[in-house]
Amino acid sequence: MKLKCITCGKEFTPVPDRYTCEVCGPFLGTLEVVYDYERMKVTKETFMSGKSIFQFKDLLPVKSHTPMDFSIGNTPLFRFNNKCGLDTLLVKFDGVSPSGSFKDRASIIALNLAIELGAQKIFCASTGNAASSLSILSAHSDLTTEIFVPVSAPIGKLAQLAAAGANLHLIKGSYDDAFDVSMKVGLSNGWYCRNSAINPYLTEGKKTGAYEVLVQNNYKVPDFCFVGVGDGTVVSSLIKGFEEFKHLGLVDRVPIVVGVQAEGADAVKRSFENGPPFRPVSIAANTIADSISVGNPRDVVKACQYMARNGGAFISVSDDEIKTAIVELTRETGVFAEPAGAIAFAGFKKLMNQGRIHRSDSVVLIVTGNGLKDPSHLDVELPDAVTPEVVLEMIGG
Amino acid sequence: MKLKCITCGKEFTPVPDRYTCEVCGPFLGTLEVVYDYERMKVTKETFMSGKSIFQFKDLLPVKSHTPMDFSIGNTPLFRFNNKCGLDTLLVKFDGVSPSGSFKDRASIIALNLAIELGAQKIFCASTGNAASSLSILSAHSDLTTEIFVPVSAPIGKLAQLAAAGANLHLIKGSYDDAFDVSMKVGLSNGWYCRNSAINPYLTEGKKTGAYEVLVQNNYKVPDFCFVGVGDGTVVSSLIKGFEEFKHLGLVDRVPIVVGVQAEGADAVKRSFENGPPFRPVSIAANTIADSISVGNPRDVVKACQYMARNGGAFISVSDDEIKTAIVELTRETGVFAEPAGAIAFAGFKKLMNQGRIHRSDSVVLIVTGNGLKDPSHLDVELPDAVTPEVVLEMIGG
Repeated sequence: MKLKCITCGKEFTPVPDRYTCEVCGPFLGTLEVVYDYERMKVTKETFMSGKSIFQFKDLLPVKSHTPMDFSIGNTPLFRFNNKCGLDTLLVKFDGVSPSGSFKDRASIIALNLAIELGAQKIFCASTGNAASSLSILSAHSDLTTEIFVPVSAPIGKLAQLAAAGANLHLIKGSYDDAFDVSMKVGLSNGWYCRNSAINPYLTEGKKTGAYEVLVQNNYKVPDFCFVGVGDGTVVSSLIKGFEEFKHLGLVDRVPIVVGVQAEGADAVKRSFENGPPFRPVSIAANTIADSISVGNPRDVVKACQYMARNGGAFISVSDDEIKTAIVELTRETGVFAEPAGAIAFAGFKKLMNQGRIHRSDSVVLIVTGNGLKDPSHLDVELPDAVTPEVVLEMIGG
Repeated sequence: MKLKCITCGKEFTPVPDRYTCEVCGPFLGTLEVVYDYERMKVTKETFMSGKSIFQFKDLLPVKSHTPMDFSIGNTPLFRFNNKCGLDTLLVKFDGVSPSGSFKDRASIIALNLAIELGAQKIFCASTGNAASSLSILSAHSDLTTEIFVPVSAPIGKLAQLAAAGANLHLIKGSYDDAFDVSMKVGLSNGWYCRNSAINPYLTEGKKTGAYEVLVQNNYKVPDFCFVGVGDGTVVSSLIKGFEEFKHLGLVDRVPIVVGVQAEGADAVKRSFENGPPFRPVSIAANTIADSISVGNPRDVVKACQYMARNGGAFISVSDDEIKTAIVELTRETGVFAEPAGAIAFAGFKKLMNQGRIHRSDSVVLIVTGNGLKDPSHLDVELPDAVTPEVVLEMIGG
């Protein structure tokens, strides 16, 4: 295993607290973990449904050290036939991970690395999910968790943080402000960094989402994979996961990945559309999809490089489309998602309506967060409460 | 497989819509499902971690017919060493089930039975979780779901219901009122009944929680099992599960089960303490633990009979103890529970403080619902929001 800069290609020895390329800096110098794939002996039978992400241990940068580990991953891949105009719709639902989001896949890697390093403290800036994930997963341990979230984070996520007893720094400002101050404070104090746009090892946790789609679908490769995009990390992680399984000979192609952004927070899409060499674009983010409300995305170069290689695209949808998607996704599949989770469905609908997806295409939606995290944007009115007598009169009994 | 009345012992042919004993009526005439255990060929290797509840198909009253089935069960059993004064504390967390509660184990049985029966509609009265569970799991199907919940149900549960598109009857009254009107309306209209205190098949789903504790703990039997109690169904279901595995020779004893009620909703405890023959007690329920706020429990006779045979007990804790338990459980284990889930921890703490549990005793807590369902009772204050500059000044960076 080694680390490699995605911009200059320089290689580094992998130690747990090496985060970015010294030459290219934090925005351009994202590192990626490269394994000695040729020496790996892996067959389709090596992996199976029903196991945690640590079944992929040869493709992870850390060993299992905590009692939470075996509960990470193995989230359901629901398969619906003749649904939403498709022969086959697959929905991967990470809202049922212990803290209720996809972020657990990354947090568990950071937590185990921090334990290997003997760190006393671990820190994280977050729109909410990464922070609640880290707080929940580290709660049982001796590590102190230092969390930086914008004051706008929704109540469910703040509730998890508060209950888990993390040291919460509630920042008057945006996620981008919280990120910047977390880096200054965390690195200068020598805390372990769980910011996935910076820490190259966290991608390795997130890529297991792609591994599981393939394993749980019996190595049949979906044609399209839709996922919400904020910082850009999940897109490159999923593409890396798909590519590695191809590289290992487990599948012969990878899905087209579609990264879906909110119209009010589409910085990664803008960078991508500006073309190579991809460079960060900074905007003022504004969307109800709090988890991906990122104006100054930190992992944009890697995301765009991977997407260009994949042949996929970034698209954007409006907040209204997201609101509609929350309800439609639940009604069609029973998967109740937070805005940034349901956005995958909104993106799929958009391309479907444009005729760019066909009935015979197989599609997987990566739904990254539970709707219980933030029900405030639910676009449904509850009925009036009535007495039992009124019900009997109206329906009979 | 046959049905047997728990009061008069009369046996019935099992058809999906046979609910209670015609002779003894709905309160005393609860039926239980009895299998031909002697003919079953089951060994410890038959079952394994990582599989849905349908791995126990020979011990279930229905086959799998829906794409949601494989996602039910196989919730984590966390194992903590040297925690809360114990050598080993086990926590079974059903808050990560698709709808966020233990009720999914019962709903999936009802849904599959309704499909087998060719029903058009399925109904349920609920404090919230059973209703949101049924709505979420049936959303993908052609069945119409009719739901009766008290207007006091917490926002997370109502959000799930509304998003899933169930026909929601919001009842001005208590859970007990909602239950009564649901039975009148549902049965007279010929809808399929998913009220677990009435439908004997639903216990069969819930008992899998006990099976999984044993399978996931490598058939080592915990000394104590704590769980919250409302209607009484979960207690008898868990005891049935433990007993069946003993009957099948997979374990040689069963855990002592402790049913924990809220002080303001302790009707099952009162019935039990009045002694045999156990008879329902009716009270005015009042507790923050909405899921178990039941004044007129429907499954009390079975719960008490099973508990008497088990040698366990019902205890009660105050709402303040429940609030404390929500926070302590999260800080110790990372398991963020709703009040009725955290009550298992409150009960454990109570017996621990009384010296009735010892360090070497192994204890399993059944945590039945996710804290994201209802964060309103969280007894923690958030810190004031501060600017990044203030953080830098205070901690340095």
